[in-house]
Amino acid sequence: MADVVGRVREAFARIDEVGRPEIWIVLRGREEVEAEAAAVDPDLPLAGTVAVVKGNFDVAGLRTTAGCPSYGRVATADAPAVARLRDAGAVILGTTNMDQFATGLVGTRSPYGVVRNAVDPAYVSGGSSSGSAVAVALGIADVALGTDTAGSARVPAAFNGIAGLKPTPGLITTDGVVPACRSLDCVGVFARTPKEAHRVLGVLADGPVAPPPRRPGPWRVAVPHTTADLGELAPGWAGAYESAARALDMDLLPVDVSPFVDAGDLLYGGAFIAERYTAVGAFIAGGSPDLDPTVAAIVASASDIPAYRLFGDRERLAALRDEAMSALGEADALLLPTAPFHPTIAEVAADPVGVNARLGRFTNSTNLLGMASLAVPYGQVDGRPFGVMLLGRAGTDDHLAAIATAPAP
Amino acid sequence: MADVVGRVREAFARIDEVGRPEIWIVLRGREEVEAEAAAVDPDLPLAGTVAVVKGNFDVAGLRTTAGCPSYGRVATADAPAVARLRDAGAVILGTTNMDQFATGLVGTRSPYGVVRNAVDPAYVSGGSSSGSAVAVALGIADVALGTDTAGSARVPAAFNGIAGLKPTPGLITTDGVVPACRSLDCVGVFARTPKEAHRVLGVLADGPVAPPPRRPGPWRVAVPHTTADLGELAPGWAGAYESAARALDMDLLPVDVSPFVDAGDLLYGGAFIAERYTAVGAFIAGGSPDLDPTVAAIVASASDIPAYRLFGDRERLAALRDEAMSALGEADALLLPTAPFHPTIAEVAADPVGVNARLGRFTNSTNLLGMASLAVPYGQVDGRPFGVMLLGRAGTDDHLAAIATAPAP
Repeated sequence: MADVVGRVREAFARIDEVGRPEIWIVLRGREEVEAEAAAVDPDLPLAGTVAVVKGNFDVAGLRTTAGCPSYGRVATADAPAVARLRDAGAVILGTTNMDQFATGLVGTRSPYGVVRNAVDPAYVSGGSSSGSAVAVALGIADVALGTDTAGSARVPAAFNGIAGLKPTPGLITTDGVVPACRSLDCVGVFARTPKEAHRVLGVLADGPVAPPPRRPGPWRVAVPHTTADLGELAPGWAGAYESAARALDMDLLPVDVSPFVDAGDLLYGGAFIAERYTAVGAFIAGGSPDLDPTVAAIVASASDIPAYRLFGDRERLAALRDEAMSALGEADALLLPTAPFHPTIAEVAADPVGVNARLGRFTNSTNLLGMASLAVPYGQVDGRPFGVMLLGRAGTDDHLAAIATAPAP
Repeated sequence: MADVVGRVREAFARIDEVGRPEIWIVLRGREEVEAEAAAVDPDLPLAGTVAVVKGNFDVAGLRTTAGCPSYGRVATADAPAVARLRDAGAVILGTTNMDQFATGLVGTRSPYGVVRNAVDPAYVSGGSSSGSAVAVALGIADVALGTDTAGSARVPAAFNGIAGLKPTPGLITTDGVVPACRSLDCVGVFARTPKEAHRVLGVLADGPVAPPPRRPGPWRVAVPHTTADLGELAPGWAGAYESAARALDMDLLPVDVSPFVDAGDLLYGGAFIAERYTAVGAFIAGGSPDLDPTVAAIVASASDIPAYRLFGDRERLAALRDEAMSALGEADALLLPTAPFHPTIAEVAADPVGVNARLGRFTNSTNLLGMASLAVPYGQVDGRPFGVMLLGRAGTDDHLAAIATAPAP
């Protein structure tokens, strides 16, 4: 039987211990959370689980800011994903820091402070779900909710050495979440292991998904013909990726990975980014002293993108989707590094737009292609976490979890 | 056994008789067509059927102009819809005049001349599939292909007293057709009766569609609570509409028709029109003396519509689609007038944009809502054709045809 209150006390002790105040947008009061914990039915599936929630989710009674205090308003009800966590017995400690309006993959774009990496504080946490990832990585929380439009759950998972699950689009409702690109946004789940993240998906999903048919026999995982096809990677990361692929002990199928990268270029190089202006453009145009200047500039620049280009980009995307699915062929999943490199906080400060843009090389296309994904921690390189990512067709969330948790050879 | 050559000779005799040269963009040579007719297997399902094709379809060897000679190029292959007509034994006389780039519901926006109404030449033919509708109405052709993005097959069908079928989006491929709004365009079918139009749909469709489930029992047809809910109609048209509804001899269900009209306002009042610029904007911006000035101005003005508005409009449309389907309830179809009034050529010339815009009140929303539709001739008012239109959920093409062809009480 879960010791719910005990686990909460541990979590608060850990908060004091780690000295990372930048994790939080709203950390709830200890007495209030303990009282709530004492009322949890200890037989519930997530009883004894401590959770945190990214600051763009509604949590009843807390201010939903999406990283911008002046944008915020107090939520009157939990977002459905938050409510399901609670109904399953999880206790919510509070809301976590994030790249403002979920616009960024770095974790530095917030008036609540730069979120430092859990393992090496000179490095970025990754974003936009920065506080959620670090809270799990540091052992404060067992589970965290994030969002993932272009990699915002998977990149910080990789940088902090934990699992980040980005389900099939639509599988977890984004109601009650401040939109970034509403038609592409997904709820993401952080946990220390892929298995635990997948277990939480079962609590959060709107319903079971029917996976597409697959060929009988062993799992087939697509990989690039050579790591050179992945473009430039951080020193040691190509070898770590190859080692992760070998560790899967499954049939590896070399494929052309270029459509997966090219489709991602459409997200920020094309017209799709205009949807960020639909979400918060009017607010940003109104001006506010707590706007992150990089985020504000990115969203404001999206106001002029003409709609006729968007229709053209949709046609290009449809063609790339056909190419990508054709390249995937009979493979059950594609294995890629989660990110191409891991920058320091100083490197991001020196070039906030350029460094950020390069981080999404492997994650930007996933939601445009309608795919499921699971970021899996895979050891360390030079003392910092390294991670790989499984990508699969819509509905293959269970497959990805099975591949990620298969016993090593 | 069909007398294919005889039917072609009749068609050419009728062409000479009616004196309507504005019907055509390319009328093929009589000898060539007769020679082709002589080679048709008389047992084919459409043997003995004379067809014409709107000028935005590729017909091998003819110049595809979409109503703009300088835009044209000679097609090297038939569009799939044209090929299927021919494979079924139909003989194609040529390509027909149209509102340029399928932008219009009037039939006056063409450098090939104003297409006069088949019954009263002081009135417009309707458009944009103007020549196709008039060729069938005057008995030159038995069947015609048109396109219908916002009513371009149904409105001219109504104005000329014939049937116009606008199938479920995607049911007939638009490959080989110059796009107007590519994501909304549908191939349309003209014939003298709904039954004949539906028979041709069977030849053209990419495959059978599974209709959605329906309640057992008699057909249920939704109608407005009162004809006042339809807004202003031409004198006598409200009574004609009521008479048509009574003639259906089916269960009539009064519903709120406003979401069907409101969704249509998004098509030209919103950002969706920008897709016309995606299709031909660059060509129009280049300038050409044979551009229709009204069409060129409409398309050019769509270049500045921002993409962020389009995302907002998609969200509004999704909400209106829910409202519309909810209003439809258990009804198998909705019955509306096809158009609210029928203008003269002089009235359109006096206000080319305003009159045109008002003509699409009932047809503009159909493709945005993903619905099937069938325009049905229903007698005359003041000596000119009147028509009604059935609308149904995606996949109900067979239902609409069954309702339209049920025996009168």
